[in-house]
Amino acid sequence: MALAATALPFDDIRALIKLMPDLSTEAVEAVRQRDRQLTKPPGSLGRLEEVVEWLAAVQGTAPPTVSRPMVAVFAANHGVVAQGVSPYPPEVTRQMLENFSAGGAAINQICSSFDIGLKVFDLALDIPTGDITQGPAMDEAACAATMAFGMEAVAGGTDLLVLGEMGIGNTTIAAAIYHALYGGEARDWVGRGTGVDDAGLQRKTAAVAAAVARHKAHLADPLEVLRRLGGREIAAMAGAILAARSERVPVVLDGYVVCAAAAVLHALDPRTLDHCIAGHLSAEGAHGEVLRRLGKQPLLDLGMRLGEASGGALAVAVIKAALACHRGMATFAQAGVTDKA
Amino acid sequence: MALAATALPFDDIRALIKLMPDLSTEAVEAVRQRDRQLTKPPGSLGRLEEVVEWLAAVQGTAPPTVSRPMVAVFAANHGVVAQGVSPYPPEVTRQMLENFSAGGAAINQICSSFDIGLKVFDLALDIPTGDITQGPAMDEAACAATMAFGMEAVAGGTDLLVLGEMGIGNTTIAAAIYHALYGGEARDWVGRGTGVDDAGLQRKTAAVAAAVARHKAHLADPLEVLRRLGGREIAAMAGAILAARSERVPVVLDGYVVCAAAAVLHALDPRTLDHCIAGHLSAEGAHGEVLRRLGKQPLLDLGMRLGEASGGALAVAVIKAALACHRGMATFAQAGVTDKA
Repeated sequence: MALAATALPFDDIRALIKLMPDLSTEAVEAVRQRDRQLTKPPGSLGRLEEVVEWLAAVQGTAPPTVSRPMVAVFAANHGVVAQGVSPYPPEVTRQMLENFSAGGAAINQICSSFDIGLKVFDLALDIPTGDITQGPAMDEAACAATMAFGMEAVAGGTDLLVLGEMGIGNTTIAAAIYHALYGGEARDWVGRGTGVDDAGLQRKTAAVAAAVARHKAHLADPLEVLRRLGGREIAAMAGAILAARSERVPVVLDGYVVCAAAAVLHALDPRTLDHCIAGHLSAEGAHGEVLRRLGKQPLLDLGMRLGEASGGALAVAVIKAALACHRGMATFAQAGVTDKA
Repeated sequence: MALAATALPFDDIRALIKLMPDLSTEAVEAVRQRDRQLTKPPGSLGRLEEVVEWLAAVQGTAPPTVSRPMVAVFAANHGVVAQGVSPYPPEVTRQMLENFSAGGAAINQICSSFDIGLKVFDLALDIPTGDITQGPAMDEAACAATMAFGMEAVAGGTDLLVLGEMGIGNTTIAAAIYHALYGGEARDWVGRGTGVDDAGLQRKTAAVAAAVARHKAHLADPLEVLRRLGGREIAAMAGAILAARSERVPVVLDGYVVCAAAAVLHALDPRTLDHCIAGHLSAEGAHGEVLRRLGKQPLLDLGMRLGEASGGALAVAVIKAALACHRGMATFAQAGVTDKA
């Protein structure tokens, strides 16, 4: 796929953020009113009840609907792999895209299990972004164009969007973004990703430290962090999150890498993530701290660290069950069940 | 439904435990061998990989199969409700069974969402067990007969059994069993169940303390704990767990009340639970400590406390996804993906 030609400069991204619609308090109140009548003790479905309220707030309807959930996986390649940060060669990014097309990856099986659509976005895999230890990943026009391209993820009319990614080297990219946004030491944000050995972990940590040091004078603006340190999949996911916010589409974040896109937007304005839920807690060490900073409590904690939207797609099962309970359960009156004394 | 006439004395239960088959280490090794070839970094599916190994160990086949998952909900009434331990009247147990039959309960929606069968076992609802603060819940013949009845849960040929319960007053029963088995103070094990107020919580705690004090001289034998303090649903679930162990059927435990049946068996012999996984962590406070004592790490933690097998049934989604990945993913060789350097 070619990148879309409609380059938005960063000013237009900022303008879009100012135009975000409010969430619906009326829909939440309607959900709560129905919930109180359902044949169960109040609160006994725990986070399933919270999930339905969140869907209603975002969609602005009660009861909310999830009939066309969609996983969007964004794939890109990264110049920083030259620093020896991954045990897999960069060719694997394209090979895995072919695996997605053939139905052989984990995300295919999870999408099939829960009737979730899957779209894969190839972000110019043959042209890796610049090595962030040497210079910026992208210029502003390319970054904004990639964000605009990512906005197409909601174009098909989904009512629940799960974001995922594939890109050899992109846990290094995500770590650099977190280090730039949140400070601390490089090692606070770096993990083993797909499984680097100790020497690889040292190279990865050094690359993250070097990248942030090199761009240090320009990292006060989160969009500069994105274009200088971020890969194309991070920029595209940031665009997808913004478009979903405008279109009132709830978003399920996957793990450590996806949250780097969310973190950039959160640094611009926390309200950009009001429509996002954290699908799971990744086993990549720093993800818990990232979620804490984003104010998101993950739905699942299963030690997963695969990417591909796999944890987010699995969380769709919880969301579907939550909605099935809310929509399908009988009320005390309908079922002739005696309510609490 | 009438209780089965084939009363087993407790000695036969003990004999059955001695005959438990070993789990299969060969099947686990075969699962691991396939897992290493799948197109993902080793270990990156976290607990999903562990779940498949567990299924294989129990079923003794590789790859394992979950094509006929079944929820079995056992319902009973309890004399201890006379102590004012629940905000709902005991009639609600039968009313909820009618709600299950009509498809209006939470468990119906969750089973529909994930294609899980549902069987409900009515354990003589019109004859509550004895008030445990005044005397034993059951005599040995009734307890053993109820365990034998529970064994029928696996008769239909399921390959994954989820246990659940419905019974006004049964969080009091479960708390009494935990207090008897694990000691401490009554208040350590008592929670608000369906939502008692402060005065109700005091009555509930007092009832648990009184019950354990009354039967104190007879609680060294876990089966005596079961018949003196346990309700029929607890005894039936203990029978179901044992039958599943013999028949190599993996079992998903639901929450706080279901685990009381598991705790009785665990006290007899920890190997009785080798085929059980904890579906979720209940919001009922003491459940975490119970799971710690049973050596089980829950799959889900969603603040649920409804019973009806709802948390366990939701965990089936995770199990199905785990198995779909293991069975459906391509190997590195099949997909032409370059493996780790």
